[in-house]
Amino acid sequence: MPDNGGYHGRAARYMREWGAGVGDRLEIVWGATHSGILMPRYHHSDDAHIVIKLDSGYNVGIPVQGITDVRVSPAPPAPAPREAGPEPDPGLPDILLLSTGGTISSRIDYRTGAVRPALDAAQLGEAVPELNGIANISPRQVLSEYSENVTPDHWVQVASEIHRHGAKYAGVIVAHGTDTMHYTSAFLSLALAGFPVPIVMTGSQRSSDRASSDAAMNLAGAAAAITGGIPRGVYVAMHQDCNDGDVAVHLGTRVRKSHTSARGAFRTVDGSPAYVVRDGKLVPHDPPDDYYHGRTYEPRMRADPRVMLVKYHPGFDPSLLEAAVRSGCRAVIFEGTGLGHVGRGAYGTIRRMIQDGIFVGMASQCGSGRVRMTVYESGRDLLHMGIVPLGDMVPEVALVKAMWVLGNGLEPVSHAMTRSVASEVTW
Amino acid sequence: MPDNGGYHGRAARYMREWGAGVGDRLEIVWGATHSGILMPRYHHSDDAHIVIKLDSGYNVGIPVQGITDVRVSPAPPAPAPREAGPEPDPGLPDILLLSTGGTISSRIDYRTGAVRPALDAAQLGEAVPELNGIANISPRQVLSEYSENVTPDHWVQVASEIHRHGAKYAGVIVAHGTDTMHYTSAFLSLALAGFPVPIVMTGSQRSSDRASSDAAMNLAGAAAAITGGIPRGVYVAMHQDCNDGDVAVHLGTRVRKSHTSARGAFRTVDGSPAYVVRDGKLVPHDPPDDYYHGRTYEPRMRADPRVMLVKYHPGFDPSLLEAAVRSGCRAVIFEGTGLGHVGRGAYGTIRRMIQDGIFVGMASQCGSGRVRMTVYESGRDLLHMGIVPLGDMVPEVALVKAMWVLGNGLEPVSHAMTRSVASEVTW
Repeated sequence: MPDNGGYHGRAARYMREWGAGVGDRLEIVWGATHSGILMPRYHHSDDAHIVIKLDSGYNVGIPVQGITDVRVSPAPPAPAPREAGPEPDPGLPDILLLSTGGTISSRIDYRTGAVRPALDAAQLGEAVPELNGIANISPRQVLSEYSENVTPDHWVQVASEIHRHGAKYAGVIVAHGTDTMHYTSAFLSLALAGFPVPIVMTGSQRSSDRASSDAAMNLAGAAAAITGGIPRGVYVAMHQDCNDGDVAVHLGTRVRKSHTSARGAFRTVDGSPAYVVRDGKLVPHDPPDDYYHGRTYEPRMRADPRVMLVKYHPGFDPSLLEAAVRSGCRAVIFEGTGLGHVGRGAYGTIRRMIQDGIFVGMASQCGSGRVRMTVYESGRDLLHMGIVPLGDMVPEVALVKAMWVLGNGLEPVSHAMTRSVASEVTW
Repeated sequence: MPDNGGYHGRAARYMREWGAGVGDRLEIVWGATHSGILMPRYHHSDDAHIVIKLDSGYNVGIPVQGITDVRVSPAPPAPAPREAGPEPDPGLPDILLLSTGGTISSRIDYRTGAVRPALDAAQLGEAVPELNGIANISPRQVLSEYSENVTPDHWVQVASEIHRHGAKYAGVIVAHGTDTMHYTSAFLSLALAGFPVPIVMTGSQRSSDRASSDAAMNLAGAAAAITGGIPRGVYVAMHQDCNDGDVAVHLGTRVRKSHTSARGAFRTVDGSPAYVVRDGKLVPHDPPDDYYHGRTYEPRMRADPRVMLVKYHPGFDPSLLEAAVRSGCRAVIFEGTGLGHVGRGAYGTIRRMIQDGIFVGMASQCGSGRVRMTVYESGRDLLHMGIVPLGDMVPEVALVKAMWVLGNGLEPVSHAMTRSVASEVTW
């Protein structure tokens, strides 16, 4: 019996008449003809409409009583698992594809209407036939997590996989949820500083089974960056903008997810993407002189999560800092106001924290521009207390770096924090 | 004896020879001729250079031994306080100018080289003669604080001043530090919802005594917005970009300081400025239909600061939330990842907080785009717990609004939070 997907009343009666269930492909005549997949309704929906997902990827509600004709094709069966991938082409470079979860490895769950991780690394590789002409893909599943659930322990796991297996490939692609991809890219940059081959992270803003998915283009762009000879370093390759044009390739320590939903959500902070993949070719855009500043490979793969990120604001309660210290916090990264300020109501607490050996670094909540703490009295007062200004380091990167510095026991902390390892800060 | 401003060794000897002290105007021949003000040196500076501030506003270090000639003009005396401002022109509209401090009311302190609040409201009005042709300015000093030191109590003080004195003017200008101007503008928008005349906040990124100061242009722009007939509402008028061209006039609930130092630092989040002042004229750019949605004036001027702003990140320690609750926190605004997510490690704590009656609202850390919590499992889980999605509300505005809703006892909190009062959210 077809899945009625939560429809009730009139809509459910019409669906029974048509013999249609959720997931079926419908051609509906309602004025014009509309083709798409019948979607489930959410609780508390009315019974006067059905929802179909058009081939464009967008959902549309159609009043059942206005429908004059329907043609139903049943939901396609799930593809049978393949025994092995395509034969490797000895003329193509080899790429390791690590899958960690996220939208790029997801399908829409037609039961709940939500998107859920569903593809493993091998399926992901198969789902994007565009990859076959570019490289031989060796898929490997590391995690299956949406990136909001990714933790510093997961970062270490991904870094270890790359460390163990990555160097024998032309490069490594890491498929990852977009929500915290920039935190993971910052960690990999530091943990694997000097890694001999490029590491390109990618993801998608629309799940792989949607017509509007950006998964294929982003994956193919990541592969083309590697085969096109991008220098070693950690990058994030994602749609440049809302159009299906270029894939922007950002430095992994200078990038941020800057829009909740747009496909071109990733932006290089205070600059332009290092490279762009256009028509399958890697084009330098604003490349760094050397991502790792000539560093030889020396993995440092631990992370100590006992770091707090604090966005200072009017009314900020400094007792929160004291509570953090009591619970073992070893470093605080402030997103200060403007050039790097916090109000004087927090001075006493900050002074005590620094005296107790807690590292306190200053970035800015402005989103662009660099911290400069010598201009105003507030900044000078804070410098005098021992707050360490972090230049133009992205605050999220500063957070990750503090976890990395503390986890790997790098001393002195303020020196390790302010010295660039992977293009994360300029002075 | 001239102020030697911390110079020592060779530099101090040369200064003695020239009879020059800090704050004096020098014409120095070093290759070419350089004119500017002799600036103090900071501790630990070498003794081989002096620093002068050029008329462009920028500092340059000059090696004393390479200087072939110097002409010294002594520092100008501080202007004598004026007994009264210019005679009011009955043909011009009257504007109330409230001064709260910040760079716009500052001069460089030649003792420390830092910028310090120095001008009161009357001096500020006088320092910008451009205002005289636009309006009759009634200056009034409310605070003298850099905006990183502004607290919710200060917001209430500024709102009360406007409430008591503002309505008899054509409009009110609030001169304010830029660091937290957008937090204050959000509060004034809500506290004075429906106020009968426009309130335009402005500030500057360079102090008023610097040749490169943007103070005059921004103040004149704010005044021109009022005399040009901008509708009632709260606005932020600041340089549009780095050039001395347009002044952008942003809605006070949709704006953020988006660069640490650039003059064009303020941006309308996810959109364009509502108006622009070009050649002294107010030009509609992307104006709202009605800032206050037809609301009549009903001041609600209290604020309860017991609200926490949390930027979620990998490794986030949920025990910080518990500590906040123990210290009396009544609401939490999350800057979640992506469409509005936090990792499941925080679920237990969030569930308990909501059960205990604490309001938990969800905004996004992406900086643009709206929260949408029905797309992914994580979002649906959080909705199910009772987290309230805040649409496209700017997180800083959501923080201020929660303080305002709680301070004024508006119930139910989730209804008050999600209903637009002053163009702060669209659905």
